[in-house]
Amino acid sequence: MVNTPNIYCLVKGAAEGRTRLNAFDNSLLNAGLGDTNLMRMSSILPPAADQRSIADVDLPAGGLIPLAYAQIDSTTPGRYISSAIAVGIPEDDSEPGVIMEFEDHSLQNVEEIVRQMVVDAFEYRKRDLKEIKSIGIEHKAENCASTFAAAVLWYE
Amino acid sequence: MVNTPNIYCLVKGAAEGRTRLNAFDNSLLNAGLGDTNLMRMSSILPPAADQRSIADVDLPAGGLIPLAYAQIDSTTPGRYISSAIAVGIPEDDSEPGVIMEFEDHSLQNVEEIVRQMVVDAFEYRKRDLKEIKSIGIEHKAENCASTFAAAVLWYE
Amino acid sequence: MVNTPNIYCLVKGAAEGRTRLNAFDNSLLNAGLGDTNLMRMSSILPPAADQRSIADVDLPAGGLIPLAYAQIDSTTPGRYISSAIAVGIPEDDSEPGVIMEFEDHSLQNVEEIVRQMVVDAFEYRKRDLKEIKSIGIEHKAENCASTFAAAVLWYE
Repeated sequence: MVNTPNIYCLVKGAAEGRTRLNAFDNSLLNAGLGDTNLMRMSSILPPAADQRSIADVDLPAGGLIPLAYAQIDSTTPGRYISSAIAVGIPEDDSEPGVIMEFEDHSLQNVEEIVRQMVVDAFEYRKRDLKEIKSIGIEHKAENCASTFAAAVLWYE
Repeated sequence: MVNTPNIYCLVKGAAEGRTRLNAFDNSLLNAGLGDTNLMRMSSILPPAADQRSIADVDLPAGGLIPLAYAQIDSTTPGRYISSAIAVGIPEDDSEPGVIMEFEDHSLQNVEEIVRQMVVDAFEYRKRDLKEIKSIGIEHKAENCASTFAAAVLWYE
Repeated sequence: MVNTPNIYCLVKGAAEGRTRLNAFDNSLLNAGLGDTNLMRMSSILPPAADQRSIADVDLPAGGLIPLAYAQIDSTTPGRYISSAIAVGIPEDDSEPGVIMEFEDHSLQNVEEIVRQMVVDAFEYRKRDLKEIKSIGIEHKAENCASTFAAAVLWYE
């Protein structure tokens, strides 16, 4: 089995590219995750995981990195696209937190919704919520654009 | 590399939620998989894997859990949605089995199809099929609903 | 954490099936990856990874196999479908390479695009590109067909 991660980083990126996959790849580089292999997962924060800045974490090149992410792309010039991620931290740090992701057009709308999604997830669990951390990014597409926001899980 | 799992659990869940992702999250909780990180995979049963009840398996909170799943959501009030998963067990337990997933509206239809998919997968492999185990769930959407059925792979 | 893979294989497959998932499953068998559990990832070649033939690699039955892949299916009789994957190898083998995947109708078109995607990814990184390796497959759908091309990452 794979060990449960014990740190997390919130990251965001936006970029243009010639194809949708290139735009996605470039938005990963912009977010500081380029040159890693992302393993997308459903989205729980392990108990007592500590936050780190992505700049302080040494992800191995080509390594397999678990994460939860929001991503959207657009090939419509002038269209706004936004991605946001929110993490809910429980009062009791022996309990897991929740990660929610959302993507749409206006960042204000996207970030409001993704934070509400965390509130709902804690209410459904009847778990006390201590704090919500969120991060998001908005970009006006020129030709072919991607926005990306993620909670990366890792080890230290 | 990740070790090959040696046990599996069949689970199912259905729930409402304020958003599609919240409904999905709630259906995972209903299935007994809440508070884990699901890593979706294509869908083979490792040779000689033993079945366990999810209630008897201690999945770590926030842990990375490999699984194959069917999932569908709907925001149409009154619409039926169904998810089912089927596992084909080979006669020769040194050979791998097959996991198939399907989702649509009526459970009777979905479960018939997913079981036939296992029959087809064994025929294509010219492998003798001993038994099919399947599990499914049907739900009538109120506002925003999700159904979920999975074969979880794990270790003991 | 999961160790970073150090070998890769380029594979391709095409097949018909009674359902889209069966056609996909059959195309995996055709590619030599049947009977494994595929974990799809975003798509970086670890530094100095060596190429192997899939025939020379002993993937465990039911094992969890990281890979990047292109896949398309069609239920339109007579429709051509194609999947291709390209790997960019850097001049400096202490740096990671890039894997790009694309799928559409004509293989000539798909393979040209996927190779250009690698060129773009290296240019965006300002990294010197030594060589592109690509593999692709085209199939004319009869009833329900799938094509598949992948870069499988593994260990030796």
